[in-house]
Amino acid sequence: MITTYPTVKRISRKNIVSPIGFKAAGIHCGIKHKKNDLALLISEVPASVAGVFTTNAIKAAPLLVTKEVVQQVGKMQAIIVNSGNANACTGQQGMKDALLMQQTTAEKLGIAPELVGVASTGVIGEMMQMEPIVKGIHKIQPIAELEGSILFSQAILTTDTVTKNTAYSAIIDGKEIIIAGTAKGSGMIAPNMATMLSFITTDANIESVHLQEALKLVTDKTFNSITVDGDTSTNDMVVVMANGMAENESLTPTHPDWSLFVKTLHAVSQDLAKMIAKDGEGATKLIEVEVVGAITDEEARMIAKSVVGSPLVKTAVFGCDANWGRIIAAVGYSGATLDPNAITIKIGTTTVVENGEPILFSEQQLLVYLKQPEVKFTVELHQGNGQGIAWGCDLTYDYVQINATYRS
Amino acid sequence: MITTYPTVKRISRKNIVSPIGFKAAGIHCGIKHKKNDLALLISEVPASVAGVFTTNAIKAAPLLVTKEVVQQVGKMQAIIVNSGNANACTGQQGMKDALLMQQTTAEKLGIAPELVGVASTGVIGEMMQMEPIVKGIHKIQPIAELEGSILFSQAILTTDTVTKNTAYSAIIDGKEIIIAGTAKGSGMIAPNMATMLSFITTDANIESVHLQEALKLVTDKTFNSITVDGDTSTNDMVVVMANGMAENESLTPTHPDWSLFVKTLHAVSQDLAKMIAKDGEGATKLIEVEVVGAITDEEARMIAKSVVGSPLVKTAVFGCDANWGRIIAAVGYSGATLDPNAITIKIGTTTVVENGEPILFSEQQLLVYLKQPEVKFTVELHQGNGQGIAWGCDLTYDYVQINATYRS
Repeated sequence: MITTYPTVKRISRKNIVSPIGFKAAGIHCGIKHKKNDLALLISEVPASVAGVFTTNAIKAAPLLVTKEVVQQVGKMQAIIVNSGNANACTGQQGMKDALLMQQTTAEKLGIAPELVGVASTGVIGEMMQMEPIVKGIHKIQPIAELEGSILFSQAILTTDTVTKNTAYSAIIDGKEIIIAGTAKGSGMIAPNMATMLSFITTDANIESVHLQEALKLVTDKTFNSITVDGDTSTNDMVVVMANGMAENESLTPTHPDWSLFVKTLHAVSQDLAKMIAKDGEGATKLIEVEVVGAITDEEARMIAKSVVGSPLVKTAVFGCDANWGRIIAAVGYSGATLDPNAITIKIGTTTVVENGEPILFSEQQLLVYLKQPEVKFTVELHQGNGQGIAWGCDLTYDYVQINATYRS
Repeated sequence: MITTYPTVKRISRKNIVSPIGFKAAGIHCGIKHKKNDLALLISEVPASVAGVFTTNAIKAAPLLVTKEVVQQVGKMQAIIVNSGNANACTGQQGMKDALLMQQTTAEKLGIAPELVGVASTGVIGEMMQMEPIVKGIHKIQPIAELEGSILFSQAILTTDTVTKNTAYSAIIDGKEIIIAGTAKGSGMIAPNMATMLSFITTDANIESVHLQEALKLVTDKTFNSITVDGDTSTNDMVVVMANGMAENESLTPTHPDWSLFVKTLHAVSQDLAKMIAKDGEGATKLIEVEVVGAITDEEARMIAKSVVGSPLVKTAVFGCDANWGRIIAAVGYSGATLDPNAITIKIGTTTVVENGEPILFSEQQLLVYLKQPEVKFTVELHQGNGQGIAWGCDLTYDYVQINATYRS
């Protein structure tokens, strides 16, 4: 399950401040009891910006503020993030609070408010306590060191158990550019769009319109191909900031290195998406479902997401049970075009169904396979050339425990 | 949450053999370890028949056999049902086995095979062991007594914890007709269609084509309005047999008592649907979500199903947590037309959101309310006159436990 990118280099110990000109920080301001809950990411210069936002009709105030920056202003220099309170369904006061976060951050940095994005994550429907947040914004001090990035990635978490960071480099116009990202996920992760917060930084030189184009190209195959529980949140976004400080020739779809840039962005996005799926609430395992031979790539992804989102498949994986009947049932109700008698299913490398008929296999061998932390199912449809992959996690006692008591 | 039907009378201690001319039985034939696993329902005379079947593209062999009887033959006199093995994804052998069940039952009863329906429920992808089933068919002896009905309703269960039975009577053409039903549900219950087995008997006189019409009228608002885990099974069906022995004037949409008949069928179907939702795997509570003020009834049901199907809402209900943020988030991602600032939400009779803004409420009071075995949420959209209800259950540790170890 390790994807290789021949011309794209994964760089370890790199992070969202590795691209030239970015700084980050995270502190405890007082929304949460003890854990860090306020984070700030800034670029030395106004950056090109792209974003994808939740498709939920109920959108949180900070998301609306950031969407405006991305879609109307087209430049971003900083983003302020809090965890612990989603500032969603908080009415007019919620919008005032989101704007106050934007304004306060802008004043602190001495930049225009419309260059500041805002993101919030946490409980829905509770009013923000703005005093600790405003004080926190005054106090927080972004730095260009690894430590700042680590604190940022910690402060954006909710029920996540680990921070999520990745970075890749590529040579564009003979210059090394870096694309790095951090994310929070956990509950409420679903397709369309992958409901989470994800912040990607790069020093590549690219106009916002083309950055948006590149992000759109990779989103469906990465962030929109993961699911934890099928719920789509009110707050979630992927924001990419590109500050151009690597000084490459500005990237456009006709630039010879365009596809290399897209591939690099894809690698970052896919890493983050898989980390989010793997760290789903209560999860013990990453599930990867690959579908080949569908009519189209879209249908392949539709099926892969249907399987990876099935509560019955998810609980079977938790129980290390090679219950392929649930896999084929989820393929069946996905809505995709298929011939029941042409379906082949593999669990790991073991074929369990061939052309719709059960194949004898060693339950013991599959039990050993399913006990691994990452499991893969392959579905072959023999209908066309469409292919797609989706990622998810198992459904466990801990998912129920976490979500039965979240607010308490 | 008790629905009243002014002209339709719920009759207690009545069951699928209460309509004139029906007999039923259930026995242990040996598919399961100990529990009853083979059931037979017969009518004295060939009955008009209607059915709705799973929308899953993968359909089990017995379902295909029964669909043929309903749609091609249009009459049914008996239905043979086994639990413990779904006979799904079992290839050509599976179809042979389903036909053997049909054939053996027909021979035993001395009727044409095409008058016999077949239904199976249980594990997917395991070959049937036909020897005990064939022996069981020879042995099983349907009777017109309550006991036969009880044994039938027990023998069709899988992980259900209770049998599900209901019956209503109505006066049509001055004659009492009875409509009765039994069902099994539990896991894999989802909308479109409600994935379960449900058998409804009536002594009303009605042609199959009109019976199908009546069933179609009630299905969306009953069986298709429940969800346990969003999974749609390969085997599931609702079959109605009407043997005409009440000797009313044949019912058609122009008959003066047509709407009374539909109402009675609706009452039976709704009771069964709610019983299935309440007995969802691991469930401790029935959740009812009523949506009013949507653009259309369809959109209202779409929203109600979105809320009742949300894993985050379901776990919050299990935890007795008045986490309305998850309710409004599920309203938001339902895909229905809405204005976030016009949404009002009630938990029981307590308003928690009014026109999109949070309302202060007593957490303590709602905790008491949410500890009840049946809880209701009301969502008011103020967009139109569309209304709809959906039912579901909470998501608990037991759901995970049951499904992590189902085949083991």
